[in-house]
Amino acid sequence: MSASFSKTITEADLVLFAGVSGDNNAMHVNEEFAAATPFGGRIAHGMLTASVISAAIANKMPGPGTIYLGQNLRFRAPVRPGETVHATVTVTEIVVDRRRVTLSTICRVGGKVVVEGDALVMTTTSQSGEAVPECKQVGLVV
Amino acid sequence: MSASFSKTITEADLVLFAGVSGDNNAMHVNEEFAAATPFGGRIAHGMLTASVISAAIANKMPGPGTIYLGQNLRFRAPVRPGETVHATVTVTEIVVDRRRVTLSTICRVGGKVVVEGDALVMTTTSQSGEAVPECKQVGLVV
Repeated sequence: MSASFSKTITEADLVLFAGVSGDNNAMHVNEEFAAATPFGGRIAHGMLTASVISAAIANKMPGPGTIYLGQNLRFRAPVRPGETVHATVTVTEIVVDRRRVTLSTICRVGGKVVVEGDALVMTTTSQSGEAVPECKQVGLVV
Repeated sequence: MSASFSKTITEADLVLFAGVSGDNNAMHVNEEFAAATPFGGRIAHGMLTASVISAAIANKMPGPGTIYLGQNLRFRAPVRPGETVHATVTVTEIVVDRRRVTLSTICRVGGKVVVEGDALVMTTTSQSGEAVPECKQVGLVV
């Protein structure tokens, strides 16, 4: 069971992520500084790229209402403004009675792995139960 | 060697993080849905809370120019809009010749641990070397 979510990381995303995180690392917001490093220019915040995994989990698999319990991340390559991140999550283990799902999580740009790792999530349901159809697909709504 | 960075997670941060990540999980953007779950209302994206760690690393320790290589996260408790996240990073290992630094990373709200984990980073320097004074403090500029 796999699902993907893709998002282009724009200039605006870098600016807004700097704002919401407080991370104004010169590698992300100062082109003159970044151009003088081995990266040759600004790169996206690693946690910004990784946040696309969160979207794949929340929007696709297991889907709406999912709660993050853990995420391990290894940043393999830089992502530059304008590049499109494809996050793929694959279910590797399900513990039905505890509503726990483990997923492998990989972000690619143009086929190249930029972030990899794994996630542990818990599924939830609203009292009406109507908002978590994706969870039903994997047998997680109790 | 420890450093902290603190940031209040506002309503605006949830909205903007949903935008930059693509994560429109109902737990973060739909009060009616979230109110009907065990959490009783909207909570911040886990990766939004964790992004304050990125700020502590980039702004404080090791400081400007630091590159993320890895981050492990365990989400221990929800963070609600209006709460202030205090991210503390503590150096646990330095490999000088490879410019690698390992840090324990903890986020607290009102003294309660909400996210914990560890990070692996690499320090860099601009060609002028002027932008990474914090790295010099821990002996990492070669």
